[in-house]
Amino acid sequence: MSQEKNAISPTREENYPEWYQQVVKAADLAENSPVRGCMVIKPWGYGIWENMQKYLDQKIKSTGHENAYFPLFIPLSFLEKEAAHVEGFAKECAVVTHHRLEERNGKLIPTGELEEPLIVRPTSETIIGESFSRWVESYRDLPLLINQWANVVRWEMRPRIFLRTAEFLWQEGHTVHASSEEAFEETLKMLEVYREFVENILAIPVITGEKSPGERFPGAVSTYTIEMMVQDRKALQGGTSHFLGQNFAKASNIRFSNKDGETEYGHTTSWGITTRLIGALIMTHGDDDGIRLPPKIAHRQVVILPIMPKPEHEAAVLGQAEKVAQELRSSTFNGQPISVHVDKRDLRGGEKNWEWIKKGVPIRIEIGPRDVENQVVTLCRRDQPHKTKITIPVAELSQKLPLILEDMQNNYFAQALQFRDSHIRRDIHTFEELKQFFTPKNADKPEIHGGFVLAKWCGDPETEKMLDDLKVTIRCLPLEQSETEGTCILTGKKAKLDVILAKSY
Amino acid sequence: MSQEKNAISPTREENYPEWYQQVVKAADLAENSPVRGCMVIKPWGYGIWENMQKYLDQKIKSTGHENAYFPLFIPLSFLEKEAAHVEGFAKECAVVTHHRLEERNGKLIPTGELEEPLIVRPTSETIIGESFSRWVESYRDLPLLINQWANVVRWEMRPRIFLRTAEFLWQEGHTVHASSEEAFEETLKMLEVYREFVENILAIPVITGEKSPGERFPGAVSTYTIEMMVQDRKALQGGTSHFLGQNFAKASNIRFSNKDGETEYGHTTSWGITTRLIGALIMTHGDDDGIRLPPKIAHRQVVILPIMPKPEHEAAVLGQAEKVAQELRSSTFNGQPISVHVDKRDLRGGEKNWEWIKKGVPIRIEIGPRDVENQVVTLCRRDQPHKTKITIPVAELSQKLPLILEDMQNNYFAQALQFRDSHIRRDIHTFEELKQFFTPKNADKPEIHGGFVLAKWCGDPETEKMLDDLKVTIRCLPLEQSETEGTCILTGKKAKLDVILAKSY
Repeated sequence: MSQEKNAISPTREENYPEWYQQVVKAADLAENSPVRGCMVIKPWGYGIWENMQKYLDQKIKSTGHENAYFPLFIPLSFLEKEAAHVEGFAKECAVVTHHRLEERNGKLIPTGELEEPLIVRPTSETIIGESFSRWVESYRDLPLLINQWANVVRWEMRPRIFLRTAEFLWQEGHTVHASSEEAFEETLKMLEVYREFVENILAIPVITGEKSPGERFPGAVSTYTIEMMVQDRKALQGGTSHFLGQNFAKASNIRFSNKDGETEYGHTTSWGITTRLIGALIMTHGDDDGIRLPPKIAHRQVVILPIMPKPEHEAAVLGQAEKVAQELRSSTFNGQPISVHVDKRDLRGGEKNWEWIKKGVPIRIEIGPRDVENQVVTLCRRDQPHKTKITIPVAELSQKLPLILEDMQNNYFAQALQFRDSHIRRDIHTFEELKQFFTPKNADKPEIHGGFVLAKWCGDPETEKMLDDLKVTIRCLPLEQSETEGTCILTGKKAKLDVILAKSY
Repeated sequence: MSQEKNAISPTREENYPEWYQQVVKAADLAENSPVRGCMVIKPWGYGIWENMQKYLDQKIKSTGHENAYFPLFIPLSFLEKEAAHVEGFAKECAVVTHHRLEERNGKLIPTGELEEPLIVRPTSETIIGESFSRWVESYRDLPLLINQWANVVRWEMRPRIFLRTAEFLWQEGHTVHASSEEAFEETLKMLEVYREFVENILAIPVITGEKSPGERFPGAVSTYTIEMMVQDRKALQGGTSHFLGQNFAKASNIRFSNKDGETEYGHTTSWGITTRLIGALIMTHGDDDGIRLPPKIAHRQVVILPIMPKPEHEAAVLGQAEKVAQELRSSTFNGQPISVHVDKRDLRGGEKNWEWIKKGVPIRIEIGPRDVENQVVTLCRRDQPHKTKITIPVAELSQKLPLILEDMQNNYFAQALQFRDSHIRRDIHTFEELKQFFTPKNADKPEIHGGFVLAKWCGDPETEKMLDDLKVTIRCLPLEQSETEGTCILTGKKAKLDVILAKSY
């Protein structure tokens, strides 16, 4: 493949949704499986998830939470209790009805019908609540701070790899507190953990805010979110934190005796992030040559490509490659040893080079016979054009590399922030203008539209429906409110609330 | 609770199965859930699993494997292919038949029947094989070395927490190789990884060996196992490694073109360990006061119990406790910082102390006002009687503690080894003697029986059925074979193979 052409076809400009699918494929991140809506996360994609888990798990633990594991299955009756409070309840979920397969005439037949069907967890509030109702007795048992890393299933009619899949991986935190204030504080504390993680590690700027009533988690008193803008200017919800008040405690009968010996319902929260964040990484930092991994989340930060034009170069070049790798591994970046891979495969140099470009490895280091002679390496940064090469003396490498990685991390964040902020409109004040802003200019590319609108809203939940036809939603009421007065973008009435409006995934 | 009495009732001697359940409860490791056969793994139990994952994941990666994630669901047709080769195929598994719940008259009804039912994975050979058939094209793609950490479901009729549950957690390795020799080598390499992990980290001695044909994984050419003896002298299978030859490659169509351009089927292996190893820890090291955690697997190796008879002691005692904790945390044991917890809860000292005894924390350190004055601590080891206390100067603690932990780790292994070896009989030569050995002496306690028998076997698969009535199986043909000749314990014929026979979980 020539370096003149882009590695990914179509480009983002040509067809953004298809570009996304092609990056997932070219970077070898994941693939669709023969099971409808379920994905296979390949090693390169799973390595990103493992790194996300590692960083976030540490944060979750350092804020006092412990991990536990609850059953995959939820009895139907648990959801019936919930459904009793929800009009027109319907759930897309996987229902287990039999517990045995038997062969009859060469066919396998489900047998052993269950007395009560089981639901594969779409989220674990009800099953965890059942345990919590037994674990919590006294105020001494509170706060109860539990997290679970698990797979969940929601039957998706229009699945899209990483972003919306029938089965996905996530962490779900579930906590119980003695007071409403403390539960509320926890809700915002975990939102801040997510913000810090997504901005500092994934290099994706987020807007933290509260969901409007129409977008709230069913049963929550309030839902908080981190909202990102990806390169087609749509919003992507990166994680949510729910303040559940006493609603779930009442449904699950989570009660405790307080210091005065009186029985009260607990105050609960839940919060989660998912493998969708891998999709967010691609959509935020990807370019027309593939994914670009911010150094702090890359599971391989440096790949060394030995160049051996003739067999007699092998010993010297491979020896130098291993020596450089060892030296870099004993340096640290972001408190961790730098992760270095030496690619010794018997492939053409160009082929290897492009593979790592598409996979988004931050740094590629070439070492050829002349480099060995001169005790230098040739270094390429994924955030610079592929032909831009820097020559660095081997002696300076382990001192310079952490600085380069830091610089790249900052670059990725700055680029994403610049992109986002240049596509937030603050000068749209009427519903008519809003409509125009969100109407695609080019019928062939319905995905290209305006971006985010920061406007005023009166706060009346009934008015949110006006946005349905536009396929726009209130993404959030940012935590940072201007407190100025203006006119509601939907009704024209006087309004004070700042809201972000956008199309979204 | 008085220190004269045992914390767990009944004792092992009185009722071993019930003792096990009570230890699980007293140590707060796990509980049964309202979902039949599924368990809730509580933080103290899950912390052990996390530590197992951490150590083993590192080993799996350092032997060249990468993690990935495959779908939870397997299409029925995938299992039908397999069933075609297995007579009287029947599987206890969870079958998903619907993808939606709808409310009708206050009841939730499964709707949206699937065209093809989905099976919740009982193991992932078939679904992973489908991916592998696409990933493998050329000999350059081999070896393909993949591991998955996941939950699996096997409908169990007689579940027992950790040992046999409908849903359990495990890792499953799946590899493809270009030659039979290499696949066989991989099978034994991973068996050795398991042996090293279980013996060195869990302090449980194992016998490594090959399964007899009657105990082989269906479809495998050969199955290897690590077998442990727990304290009721039964065998517990701790992990298996399967050499699958080309059987699964043929079923899944995993083919590659070799160096000569010819198309061949790959040679595959699979291997796994599960949360059942937590059960093995309890059953091997537990005593009548609870679980005893070997220091290398304990997620908290030291707990500090501040003793403050009067409020005015608080500042000095808590200050000293934190100081000691900090100092210990900067020491290392087994290459990791020592994990220390300061238990500041407002509970009576005796209550706290017993809680940590039952939970099996290796070291309890008491610090009272007089200890602060004298700059000493009072240390209790979980492998010694609870009243045995050692006084150690604070100045010497961080130097001595790693040595004490090492000593405990060795003690636990030595005790388990001594117990096992004293219950392996090598002097049983006839079927009649075998029968007598495995017949319970006391009808009230059917669980108390002889132990392991190391005997000769002729190798005829037909003869294994003779053991059914005794509820005994050939546990394995140890890798270490004596190569001597003797008489088959089942048939009396001349025989050379050494085998281990036992009742098992």
